[in-house]
Amino acid sequence: MTADQLDSTFAALADPTRRAILARLADGEATVGELAEPFAISLPAVSRHLKVLERAGLIIRGRTAQYRPCRLQPRPLGEAAEWLEDYRLLWEGSFDRLEDHLRQVQKGRRSD
Amino acid sequence: MTADQLDSTFAALADPTRRAILARLADGEATVGELAEPFAISLPAVSRHLKVLERAGLIIRGRTAQYRPCRLQPRPLGEAAEWLEDYRLLWEGSFDRLEDHLRQVQKGRRSD
Repeated sequence: MTADQLDSTFAALADPTRRAILARLADGEATVGELAEPFAISLPAVSRHLKVLERAGLIIRGRTAQYRPCRLQPRPLGEAAEWLEDYRLLWEGSFDRLEDHLRQVQKGRRSD
Repeated sequence: MTADQLDSTFAALADPTRRAILARLADGEATVGELAEPFAISLPAVSRHLKVLERAGLIIRGRTAQYRPCRLQPRPLGEAAEWLEDYRLLWEGSFDRLEDHLRQVQKGRRSD
């Protein structure tokens, strides 16, 4: 996996409509019209989001001329999760660290 | 966790320098100068990246006037990983699905 792939995966995920589209496609393939339905945005706006997802390799479009159904390609999501996995021990400990930090802040204030 | 938080976490992660800064901070806090060292970019450029990370809640800056060391705040990483986790079954199955897809393409070609 290249840095470029991670860049485009994370950039594609940085939008609530695109995340909702992926969530819908996790249930099975859908046409642009079906994907647009739950959103208060135009078909062209949905198409732009689909292009971002397609360039990031997160979806593919079918060949069927009229419908071109979209299908989720989940592998880049797995690669993004793998990158985050390296930090698991840190975030699992972060509640403890937040406590430590607050204790230090309090200690700092007391010694001011 | 709000959609906004996920937006800014994923957007912050969509850059190789910012991911490298987080990787460095996973080993412990560091000053801007220390963070800039391994990169062929200026201190102001590093500062801009740090602002993006700070706004996303992925780092905090210390109060020490001269040094203001940066510290990783890993919780948003955990929240991003949690979002991705919903797709685990899909990406774990995606090698099989790729095979299925290739078989279907072949079948389609044969029936053309």
